[in-house]
Amino acid sequence: MSRWAPDARLRLVRAALELCTDQGYDTTTVAEIADRAGLTKTTFFRYFPDKREVLFAGQGEHARILAEAVAAAPADATPIGAVAAAVSALAACFTDRNREFGRMLVALIDANDELKERAAYKHSCLAAATATALEERDVPPATAGLAAELGIRAFHEAFTRWIEPGTELSLVALTKASLKRLRTAAALLDTPHAG
Amino acid sequence: MSRWAPDARLRLVRAALELCTDQGYDTTTVAEIADRAGLTKTTFFRYFPDKREVLFAGQGEHARILAEAVAAAPADATPIGAVAAAVSALAACFTDRNREFGRMLVALIDANDELKERAAYKHSCLAAATATALEERDVPPATAGLAAELGIRAFHEAFTRWIEPGTELSLVALTKASLKRLRTAAALLDTPHAG
Repeated sequence: MSRWAPDARLRLVRAALELCTDQGYDTTTVAEIADRAGLTKTTFFRYFPDKREVLFAGQGEHARILAEAVAAAPADATPIGAVAAAVSALAACFTDRNREFGRMLVALIDANDELKERAAYKHSCLAAATATALEERDVPPATAGLAAELGIRAFHEAFTRWIEPGTELSLVALTKASLKRLRTAAALLDTPHAG
Repeated sequence: MSRWAPDARLRLVRAALELCTDQGYDTTTVAEIADRAGLTKTTFFRYFPDKREVLFAGQGEHARILAEAVAAAPADATPIGAVAAAVSALAACFTDRNREFGRMLVALIDANDELKERAAYKHSCLAAATATALEERDVPPATAGLAAELGIRAFHEAFTRWIEPGTELSLVALTKASLKRLRTAAALLDTPHAG
């Protein structure tokens, strides 16, 4: 096995997604993932604490992109404007590989409660990172929390559409549309509905 | 050990919380929890699949209370009005025992990533149950999701204040105040902030 593997992290993610898709998440082992990636278990554990974390490898990087984009938004941006810039920045980083991996990951999450929990936690971590960056711009905590939640929700909704076969719009365009839809929805919170 | 234990579920929850608080969540076993509750492991597994689920025993009941209260709200209630009724109904069910248990549980969650994930999942499950009940009242999905999120967020914030030593306000009053604060915060999403 290769001792020098500059793309080890990516190979481990791909191996984990493919193996879990083929044979199920519960039965897949770290040894099998390392083996499929052409790496050792020791190398695996240099990158990830367990097989579950491989599947959520992007979380730290995504949180960083969101926080940096919020910080870089114009000084006169509204909270939701800063969040719109942040989720657009995140969406712009996603490639065809993210789309391919995303399809596998979403199917795995849908089939497994442990992964559903982890996905819910990822959502709350990304929202918290975004909210913290907003608070550093002196947005009051409650507003920061809601703006961040709206942004992550919009991104998630857009991502779910983006990975559907046949979707032609870019993830950036879909994210903008989702955020707009959510802002319209927020305006209806106090409107009686036909029942 | 008692073979007939009408309060077995409650005893298991108390035993789990106390043991985990005293000796840590990771080191506490199902056998120890059952033993402290004066029950057998077999009885434990009749109620819960594992030690973690004992700590989130209330989730199903809370989801039911929220959904039923949304369904019972007046026909002309706004989405946020129906959610306000739902979280008030949930808050009204909480007793001094919930407060005692809540203090232990929040401390355990703060100290453990696995429990943080589970708590994030509980939040999303309660929000989903509330949103589904709103959709059954013909509230559009996006508005239902946001209204539900605001409600669960308000309840969580109120609960966190309620379990602080010295808080004299009721959980119902705190929940109402939190929801009001969040609605005010939501109105600031499009307002530029001092930076």
